[in-house]
Amino acid sequence: MQYEFKLLGKDRDSEARRGTIITPHGSVNTPVFMPVGTQATVKSITPETLRELGAEMVLANTYHLYLRPGHEIIRKLGGIRKFMNWQGPILTDSGGFQVYSLSLLRRISPEGVTFQSHIDGSRHVLTPSLAIGIQEALGSDIMMALDECTPYPATFAEAEKSLSLTVQWAKWCRTAKTQSHQALFGIIQGGIYPELRKRAVEEICGIGFDGYAIGGVSVGEPRNLMLDITAATAPLLPQERPRYLMGVGMPSDIIDCVYHGIDMFDCVIPTRSARHGLLFTNQEKIVIKHARYREDELPLDSTCDCYTCRNYSRAYLRHLHVAGEILGIMLCTIHNIRHYMRLLEQIRTAIDEGRYAEFRSEFLKRAAESS
Amino acid sequence: MQYEFKLLGKDRDSEARRGTIITPHGSVNTPVFMPVGTQATVKSITPETLRELGAEMVLANTYHLYLRPGHEIIRKLGGIRKFMNWQGPILTDSGGFQVYSLSLLRRISPEGVTFQSHIDGSRHVLTPSLAIGIQEALGSDIMMALDECTPYPATFAEAEKSLSLTVQWAKWCRTAKTQSHQALFGIIQGGIYPELRKRAVEEICGIGFDGYAIGGVSVGEPRNLMLDITAATAPLLPQERPRYLMGVGMPSDIIDCVYHGIDMFDCVIPTRSARHGLLFTNQEKIVIKHARYREDELPLDSTCDCYTCRNYSRAYLRHLHVAGEILGIMLCTIHNIRHYMRLLEQIRTAIDEGRYAEFRSEFLKRAAESS
Repeated sequence: MQYEFKLLGKDRDSEARRGTIITPHGSVNTPVFMPVGTQATVKSITPETLRELGAEMVLANTYHLYLRPGHEIIRKLGGIRKFMNWQGPILTDSGGFQVYSLSLLRRISPEGVTFQSHIDGSRHVLTPSLAIGIQEALGSDIMMALDECTPYPATFAEAEKSLSLTVQWAKWCRTAKTQSHQALFGIIQGGIYPELRKRAVEEICGIGFDGYAIGGVSVGEPRNLMLDITAATAPLLPQERPRYLMGVGMPSDIIDCVYHGIDMFDCVIPTRSARHGLLFTNQEKIVIKHARYREDELPLDSTCDCYTCRNYSRAYLRHLHVAGEILGIMLCTIHNIRHYMRLLEQIRTAIDEGRYAEFRSEFLKRAAESS
Repeated sequence: MQYEFKLLGKDRDSEARRGTIITPHGSVNTPVFMPVGTQATVKSITPETLRELGAEMVLANTYHLYLRPGHEIIRKLGGIRKFMNWQGPILTDSGGFQVYSLSLLRRISPEGVTFQSHIDGSRHVLTPSLAIGIQEALGSDIMMALDECTPYPATFAEAEKSLSLTVQWAKWCRTAKTQSHQALFGIIQGGIYPELRKRAVEEICGIGFDGYAIGGVSVGEPRNLMLDITAATAPLLPQERPRYLMGVGMPSDIIDCVYHGIDMFDCVIPTRSARHGLLFTNQEKIVIKHARYREDELPLDSTCDCYTCRNYSRAYLRHLHVAGEILGIMLCTIHNIRHYMRLLEQIRTAIDEGRYAEFRSEFLKRAAESS
């Protein structure tokens, strides 16, 4: 099957949408949340467990896999899906964001980014065509164009200059692409300036991509600004293509951004929080190390259907966390991912049933009460 | 069901035995290898996975669980099996060995051992009756009597003094026991001195226990000495009780000690090695970090039926190891435990089929060739 996006419906009272992304390796119901598999593994769970939790698409990081083990090795071993034993669709980012957030000595030129590896200090040049080349070697179902992630804060002039570069690179990425079975998404930059975001939409959509991402969010800006950018940008994007908000976020962010018309999300929050013993529930947020859970025989969340909640007490999870046991990380990761997957299931059902605005109000009200 | 040991058969050409240990929580085929669940978790795998790998009984450490989270908490939460979600039989040690190997400031008196916690320096006194009390609170199926683990090297006089204390404590443990559904094993000490081992057997068996362990091995003595002690001691033990060699060992050790009549083993080697990327196979031993596995698309062991070998290449496992990913530890642990479980299955089959001596010769020959 070739890549295709089917828009199945739209909410009456908001921009919320339901859709299906069809890829050569399976279909994905949108709105979707993609767990992050940085190093070709979603940390501390197997692909089978991930699938059982309801995950339909996984994100992997081009920057990390390019540096280690190297994309040519993954190509030789049959591509990233075979490498990591994940049977479903995979989206890879362009590497640009990690160059921006992780690497040493970053220098941008019109041709690409020169950077030093955060692992061994080795020097590399990431160009638009290399970003595509790596992603084609990895064999992901959805590739991302190389962009310059405009930092926050940035002046209008800085954001404009950065945007121009991103548009230029987007064209080169479009040209560099050789594999018809892999989709390619363009990225909308423009900082916090609605005028630049609008221009970015016109220019990037003018090039023509299989989907569009809003980038340059989740880079330290206040939450309200992220929501404003999303609310101003998403409705400008073509209806018939999926819209992906990169690196977002908390459950309430997802609720709000679906409201503004976003279809796709990814974020390390559920997995990283799990490793730190921070658990999402439908009631309060749990910090598992707290002494109050020492003898607590309840599950993390009595409304949750996950393996962890069905079989383990908070007291046991606290014990594992305090003792530094890997099983604690495994069980907390299972719970947090399942919490996100259930949230997205609820979101999709609410849209299907034409009551998304109501669902959102109730969620935000409950969240305000328990915080 | 009450505890019972059924001796099912004995090899013609060796001391090797086949049997079944029946406990209130399931039966165990012997010879058996018990994976070690130090902190009420076999590191990095779920109880369901452990069961699928073929594990029938798990060992948990009284010293660790007494210090953290505390045996009274585990009692309140329904016992260790419920706490850790393991449905099968559990053996707990007495805590004595970890006091000997881990704690600070150990002082032995006739009444018990005064020690400081390795976690927070707090002072505790482990007496024979407390060792039993803790294990009764944990609710294990097989408890171990508190012993003094005679160090290596020790003079005859030291070993004799240590043995006398162990015999005295064994009597107290026998008296302290209040729960009829929990079995209690005595421990044979005596250092490297056959005469003392013989005396230990007479005195400990004279007290009368549900099974007997050979202790004071795997404490730094040469392998040959461990084998000599086992060969000299095991046949002196009553036929109708299981014989447990504590803390042993490598696959070849297990093969040899089954030959001398041992029924039960436990050791951290398969799990600890896995965390260090050392993998057992039927061919060479694999050190997964080696560059030679960088592009190796083969499974760890093409003769192995485990989840890891069915789904992942050495190249991927090397990548996970180098990247410090938890999934690497999980997959390597699965493989190593399965390797041990398969080894024990082969051992039991060989005894059943009356060809254990032959099986052992072939194994040792193959091991010599590949080393």
